[in-house]
Amino acid sequence: MPKDKQKKQPRPNAEPPRGFRDYVGGEVIRRQAMLATITEVYHRYGFDPLETSAIETVEALGKFLPDTDRPNEGVFAFQDEDDTWLALRYDLTAPLARFAAEHRQDLPTPFRRYATGPVWRNEKPGPGRFRQFYQCDADTVGSANPAADAEICMMLADAFEALGIPASDVAIKLNNRKILNGILETVAEGASEETAAAVLRTLDKLDKAGAEGVRQLLTTGRKDASGAFIPGVGLTDSQAEACLAFLMARRDDNAATLAELRQVVGASAQGIEGVEELEAMVALMDAAGYATRVLVDPSVVRGLGYYTGPVFEAELTFEITDEDGRLRQFGSVAGGGRYDDLVKRFTGQSVPATGVSIGVDRLLAALSAIGRDLGQASRGPIIVLAVERDRMPAYQAMATELRRAGIRAEVALGAANMGKQLKYADRRDAPIAVIEGPDEREQGIVQLKDLALGKRLSAEIETRAEWAEQPAQRAIARGDLVAGVRAMLADEDARQ
Amino acid sequence: MPKDKQKKQPRPNAEPPRGFRDYVGGEVIRRQAMLATITEVYHRYGFDPLETSAIETVEALGKFLPDTDRPNEGVFAFQDEDDTWLALRYDLTAPLARFAAEHRQDLPTPFRRYATGPVWRNEKPGPGRFRQFYQCDADTVGSANPAADAEICMMLADAFEALGIPASDVAIKLNNRKILNGILETVAEGASEETAAAVLRTLDKLDKAGAEGVRQLLTTGRKDASGAFIPGVGLTDSQAEACLAFLMARRDDNAATLAELRQVVGASAQGIEGVEELEAMVALMDAAGYATRVLVDPSVVRGLGYYTGPVFEAELTFEITDEDGRLRQFGSVAGGGRYDDLVKRFTGQSVPATGVSIGVDRLLAALSAIGRDLGQASRGPIIVLAVERDRMPAYQAMATELRRAGIRAEVALGAANMGKQLKYADRRDAPIAVIEGPDEREQGIVQLKDLALGKRLSAEIETRAEWAEQPAQRAIARGDLVAGVRAMLADEDARQ
Repeated sequence: MPKDKQKKQPRPNAEPPRGFRDYVGGEVIRRQAMLATITEVYHRYGFDPLETSAIETVEALGKFLPDTDRPNEGVFAFQDEDDTWLALRYDLTAPLARFAAEHRQDLPTPFRRYATGPVWRNEKPGPGRFRQFYQCDADTVGSANPAADAEICMMLADAFEALGIPASDVAIKLNNRKILNGILETVAEGASEETAAAVLRTLDKLDKAGAEGVRQLLTTGRKDASGAFIPGVGLTDSQAEACLAFLMARRDDNAATLAELRQVVGASAQGIEGVEELEAMVALMDAAGYATRVLVDPSVVRGLGYYTGPVFEAELTFEITDEDGRLRQFGSVAGGGRYDDLVKRFTGQSVPATGVSIGVDRLLAALSAIGRDLGQASRGPIIVLAVERDRMPAYQAMATELRRAGIRAEVALGAANMGKQLKYADRRDAPIAVIEGPDEREQGIVQLKDLALGKRLSAEIETRAEWAEQPAQRAIARGDLVAGVRAMLADEDARQ
Repeated sequence: MPKDKQKKQPRPNAEPPRGFRDYVGGEVIRRQAMLATITEVYHRYGFDPLETSAIETVEALGKFLPDTDRPNEGVFAFQDEDDTWLALRYDLTAPLARFAAEHRQDLPTPFRRYATGPVWRNEKPGPGRFRQFYQCDADTVGSANPAADAEICMMLADAFEALGIPASDVAIKLNNRKILNGILETVAEGASEETAAAVLRTLDKLDKAGAEGVRQLLTTGRKDASGAFIPGVGLTDSQAEACLAFLMARRDDNAATLAELRQVVGASAQGIEGVEELEAMVALMDAAGYATRVLVDPSVVRGLGYYTGPVFEAELTFEITDEDGRLRQFGSVAGGGRYDDLVKRFTGQSVPATGVSIGVDRLLAALSAIGRDLGQASRGPIIVLAVERDRMPAYQAMATELRRAGIRAEVALGAANMGKQLKYADRRDAPIAVIEGPDEREQGIVQLKDLALGKRLSAEIETRAEWAEQPAQRAIARGDLVAGVRAMLADEDARQ
């Protein structure tokens, strides 16, 4: 009765907005399995999940205040009916700060929480750069104890282990922002905030520019690879020397590195505090058996200006071939550190906090690179072919039997002929097709067609043409359906 | 070195926007466990997960086209930098239609997908009404076969079973929109679309208004409970009679109801088609053993105008006490049906589809009402007290031992004294506190304090004051930490 009125309107484009994408099947399952594995570790460390809503007030998010009519720098913002500016969260830390400030009277101290979920950035999309992506964070709010930082590092090591990444492939590196601050305090007394930030950015370039390049950039500047001149930060040679001594202080083991750092910081009170925090962390991790899994490495700088103490970074050290065909280490997949001022925006009181964020997409890519498939459950279903239309109830009963035995199964509903149904089964990556035609029915049997083996054989078709002509098929009694399917699946697993 | 610049700005309010809320701890874990259980069933039926992004173009979402400067009726909308209007999805079906249209050349036919995730409605918030909430959907796109509808109903029954809701507490009801259309076609030939919609809305009021009330509303109108006059739809008495005969056609079992419906639809081609579809579904479900779990019930109408064939609804039939202290059935927790025109908006071609949506929050409330706790993992951690500050590494090692044995554990990091640490443990719902002070250390033992038992005893404090003085505590050898904690947890489980 209702008539279609939509013909008069132009047809909408069937595509997601630019910079957004869809995740299907195994992509969803693999990410969920990875996040479940990681958060199970977080949970075992006493962390509780927190899920804030996707939308916050722009005021609470901070950083992006509406100085123009419409605040849209970096975030997706819009105005509520009561004129409040709202925005989609751009990370999981800002909502945590809002939540911790809101419930500071009721929360246990410290408050350990983990969170996973999408965040949104209103940025120019590009190849591989999306405007919605997942984060996976764990933070401890309310403890200034270096044990809280040590816990995060050990937890990170455990998470990689739980994901099946060998300890030999992971480097968790540890540094302390206070040491650098202490050195700058000593060697460049009264340096401006801008100079300090410029030094931080420059030290972060050790990988690309090398020690000599960093020395030039800290002082008078240098030409980069393209020949362009990059001006220097303006430190004296001896100031730059002190910074480089810090940057290069890593030795063979944590004890030696810490001894070197003691030398480097000299008499700076802040620097000594930073070294002592690292010593406390190392002692804790040694006692818990993580001595060689978390290494003090002063070359870890991490860009974000808000870190105030220990900073850490997890790198995967196995090699992959990059887009240009060159071998390189996989690189950073997680990072974090201590930040003591985020809650202060709301309450005026400094609240010590430390945490880590895992790059979900990069870690997924890493797992795929080392062949770890967490998506076991993403195997295609058994397909019961619908050979005779009027026998649908019998086919449905077969699928139900299989499901009750915990086996993923469905009846082919689409095409009418067997050939097309088998094509559908192929598309679904179905390991087995169940076939009961009139002949089988009379004999009380069903045919199990091993599609996985069939695929394997047809890949070898050139050398073994005769095999491809006889794809693997077994006739079993109808009553043995579940047992027969189980046996064939076990055979397939054994072949892998 | 970086100075705090934020003092000059007014402090932001630490609260979520109106109509939004946070989920913490067990709330997150219970919902995740419930969704994992449901989607495991969907997956076993051959459905694949699809996760579209939160943001779609307003054009693709449809329904909410920008006729004013800013489209904000019902959705949160905002303009991209290239002036495209974007919006947060308001359900999971509109993005599915967009996806199915976009990939129609590549998707298997039928395409079975499930999806879970938040959706957003820009509506006035109220008590218990939020502007972000979860949906959990399963849909089959590309099959007109009633087997696809039957599959959804059986899957729904399996999902409730997997969640531990007894079959006796669930009523899955089934109807077909074509039957009603057929009746209207016959009794009110040439009725306008508006009249048809009004009839649909009126039949949906059987619960509240009763059969006689519906008869009045279909014809000349009636006074409601408050005395206000509600005008009628304007059908004649015999037309209303035919509609009511349909509405009241439910009999003792599906066979009897279907026979009654055959009578009611008379010669209407569309009505007969509707009955035949239900007959096919019932035959399939009988064969698979769901004969009594899905019942044809013509009083199920379901508001949404876009349904074109079978419609279904799942009700929980156990009684709860409502806010007014009255016993009532828990009611509807899921619903769905066949809709064949959603993809057509994009492609111009009708694509048959059918699906179901589970009300996540209502189903969670139902599980809580029957005492099903899916959040086993939400038990608090074992707390290792930090009795002596300089022994932190030893405490950390204990927590690590427990975690390696799969036991949730943490070191108390917050307060310095034992009393406050025990209060923290209480707040965390910790079952056990592990205590090693100087005396225990010398003896090579640790104390395990059974906090769960302590709570139980202090609840009985009035009658057994002497017990509360001696909370359950056991001294065990340090080397037996894991075994001792396991034994105490087992005792606690046995007491429950």
